[in-house]
Amino acid sequence: MNQIKDMEKDFLQLLKEQSFYQEAINLSQWDARTKLPAKGAGKRAEVAGFLSEKLHLLQTSDRMKYFIDMLKEKTNDAVILKSIGVCEDTYERNKKIPHEEMKEYVTLQSKSEAIWQEAREKSDFSLFQPYLEKLVHFNKKFAAYWGYEEHIYDALLHDFEPGVTVKVLDSVFPKLKDALTSLLEKMEQSHSDTNPLIHHFPKENQRAFSLEILKKMGYDFGAGRLDETIHPFAIGINKNDVRITTRYDENDFRMAVFGTIHEGGHALYEQNLSDILSHTPLSEGTSMGIHESQSLFWEIFVGRSKAFWKANYNLFQSHAPAYFREIPLDNFYGALNEVKPSFIRIEADELTYSLHIMLRYELEKALLNGEIHVKDLPELWNEKMRDYLGVVPASDKDGVLQDIHWAGGDFGYFPSYSLGYMYAAQFENTMKKQFDLNEVILSGDYRPITNWLKENIHQYGKMKKPLEILQDVTGEGLNPDYLIRHFQKKF
Amino acid sequence: MNQIKDMEKDFLQLLKEQSFYQEAINLSQWDARTKLPAKGAGKRAEVAGFLSEKLHLLQTSDRMKYFIDMLKEKTNDAVILKSIGVCEDTYERNKKIPHEEMKEYVTLQSKSEAIWQEAREKSDFSLFQPYLEKLVHFNKKFAAYWGYEEHIYDALLHDFEPGVTVKVLDSVFPKLKDALTSLLEKMEQSHSDTNPLIHHFPKENQRAFSLEILKKMGYDFGAGRLDETIHPFAIGINKNDVRITTRYDENDFRMAVFGTIHEGGHALYEQNLSDILSHTPLSEGTSMGIHESQSLFWEIFVGRSKAFWKANYNLFQSHAPAYFREIPLDNFYGALNEVKPSFIRIEADELTYSLHIMLRYELEKALLNGEIHVKDLPELWNEKMRDYLGVVPASDKDGVLQDIHWAGGDFGYFPSYSLGYMYAAQFENTMKKQFDLNEVILSGDYRPITNWLKENIHQYGKMKKPLEILQDVTGEGLNPDYLIRHFQKKF
Repeated sequence: MNQIKDMEKDFLQLLKEQSFYQEAINLSQWDARTKLPAKGAGKRAEVAGFLSEKLHLLQTSDRMKYFIDMLKEKTNDAVILKSIGVCEDTYERNKKIPHEEMKEYVTLQSKSEAIWQEAREKSDFSLFQPYLEKLVHFNKKFAAYWGYEEHIYDALLHDFEPGVTVKVLDSVFPKLKDALTSLLEKMEQSHSDTNPLIHHFPKENQRAFSLEILKKMGYDFGAGRLDETIHPFAIGINKNDVRITTRYDENDFRMAVFGTIHEGGHALYEQNLSDILSHTPLSEGTSMGIHESQSLFWEIFVGRSKAFWKANYNLFQSHAPAYFREIPLDNFYGALNEVKPSFIRIEADELTYSLHIMLRYELEKALLNGEIHVKDLPELWNEKMRDYLGVVPASDKDGVLQDIHWAGGDFGYFPSYSLGYMYAAQFENTMKKQFDLNEVILSGDYRPITNWLKENIHQYGKMKKPLEILQDVTGEGLNPDYLIRHFQKKF
Repeated sequence: MNQIKDMEKDFLQLLKEQSFYQEAINLSQWDARTKLPAKGAGKRAEVAGFLSEKLHLLQTSDRMKYFIDMLKEKTNDAVILKSIGVCEDTYERNKKIPHEEMKEYVTLQSKSEAIWQEAREKSDFSLFQPYLEKLVHFNKKFAAYWGYEEHIYDALLHDFEPGVTVKVLDSVFPKLKDALTSLLEKMEQSHSDTNPLIHHFPKENQRAFSLEILKKMGYDFGAGRLDETIHPFAIGINKNDVRITTRYDENDFRMAVFGTIHEGGHALYEQNLSDILSHTPLSEGTSMGIHESQSLFWEIFVGRSKAFWKANYNLFQSHAPAYFREIPLDNFYGALNEVKPSFIRIEADELTYSLHIMLRYELEKALLNGEIHVKDLPELWNEKMRDYLGVVPASDKDGVLQDIHWAGGDFGYFPSYSLGYMYAAQFENTMKKQFDLNEVILSGDYRPITNWLKENIHQYGKMKKPLEILQDVTGEGLNPDYLIRHFQKKF
């Protein structure tokens, strides 16, 4: 018995060392994206690579394997048992890829990202095509090494949404797609080229308003900070140091305001992880999709609600230029929730967003399955754009070349965005059974929301898998009806 | 021969790994002092400790010892040979301290810093005394382990100013002290409690002016940045990422303006290191004193010169509030260079600064030698203050407890500040033989200065020891006459 206790202690020490490397890597990444001077980028990439390699060596060490084998059946500690699960998964997935292939793949990834950037600038898919072909080839091989039960794509989904498979997705995505396309056909779409909210709004004032909202959400500035960056993100360096970035468009405040609320939702998840998970691999969000559900919950179900703007319109106007004080709340709210099919995923409104995801999911699945080929992507992309969204980009720059994900070899990532929407709607439905969400938003005191999310979701980190959290909280599995109902009600 | 080449390659790889850890440590330190949210400090200290331990393990590894022994006599590469010298010094000094004693000492250091903070707040030396006694005891022991030829204090000086000994210092410091005290007696001192430059000056405007000066100095913003902090510093993360911080007092612009010029001088040293030294331990300033000579050269001999303000007064006034536009240049310049003995070293003017250092040097030397005891420090401190500066602090808070150095166990550090002044004056004297410095400062184009410092000093990094640089550049050894002459001429 004492021997097990000692072994657990040593194992926790190993996890702590991993968390030290992880903190150094995350800090380096945050810095690289927000503060690093241009000429420092070269060496920094080497440092980050070096630290990642050190972490990787611990994750795949014989010592790690020893702890996994010895403790898996013998520990009585729930945190240690779940940590073992995460470590074993990482160990197995890494060990199954031959070292030489992984090295080749890492080089390919960074080359591909550079080439993708060039191809996108020139809107020339043919430059990127050979690289994308190799990336798909590697991912097929890796999926075979990792193994899967039904669909090759399942092996890739595993990294982003463990437990979610093609079978699960195919049981919900078509229904969501049909509902969205038929809603889109029926509803009145904005055909105006200008939105009344496009107007100068000084950065400093946008920042001041955003900070007030973050405080209301319960974001702890003693354990975080807000910086400016080109591509906004939230990053948990550890649960006591969770940083947000945002981007200011002085002609469109929506980017910064909704961006900050969105990243703030991610950040709350990391700040509210239970202390007992600290220094273990459980001390982070359980999946990309559940993480996205937290940012979207705040962005869509709080920040884009009528109640939110009823409660905060005075505050908003106190920070906004005089121009905005002339806009009645109803007009403001209408303009805020404008639906308009467009080419670019990250600029899409909440309704059309998931259609961008469906398109990518279908293409990825068919690529991995061998049903389609890389060279056919531009044409297939545009066809699906026409079918689902009714618009076709004039060039591949605004089409198949718009996302960085494939260039980085990230296949299986996109579905998490739509899962996030569905999870969020399901959580909202459950929350509303327990208290009057609308009243809480109107009151301006969001503590009931923050506490509910903490109690039901945040504290668990990776102690529960995504579908497990969903089941425990809502009492059911993945169900697109709540999201569909939300859209039907709203639009 | 090929075997040596291979070994050199492996050695350079080991140095590179060290430099990766060093970059991660330096970044973590910069972040901790500028951006880190309060609650993240605990974990961050652990991460920094972990990375430092990893670096230490490389520095004291058997592999390192092997390379030192194998390459010392056999390499023909100058950079490798000098690197071996630095590595051997680090290896030997670390290995000579028993592991247990070093652990105990590190714990003592961090405890002592906390206690010192409390003692300083309460102005109660008796709280700090037992810790300081232990710190002195450890330093005596370490000095004995390290060894020295003439004076125990030499063993400590070595860390900050290799090659400079008590014998060297005692050949120059008394002369400097006598010159300063007699100048101070003779000159008219300001007895006014108010300086006309104390006036509101918005932070943003101070920053804008400081940035313009940094650009003129040749500071490369593509390889650096300026942030705000409580205790200003410059830090070289690597030569392509050298960051400066400053502090703004909205009622006294001098703090930020001269602080930025000072830290900018440090930063130029690091930015202008030769590329061939990158990834080796030679890629940093050669000593604390030479580093300080670079910051002081810019602060004192450029920034506080009449020519500088003649050239930049219009620019200054364009950023300053209207109040400053009423002050004639001569009055401005006079107020800028006010001499007034005071209690606090870091607030001292350029003339009295070195007297603060003399006092500390004499006390440290006598402490290490056993001529005086820790308990006698407060009284001795005040005696010397009276003798050298003619003022006595009302409490130990403004006296013996003012500096953090001793609490961190840094004995032997203070002399570098005064050495910096002397080196700078000697460099200035040589520079003036080669071009008309005054004319260059008046011209506003500082490239001749920046290039001269780069050619003669910066590029070499640790390839040359401090007194070697001094000899190579000025053709003589340490000589206080140039600094004394500067003061005599100026005051």
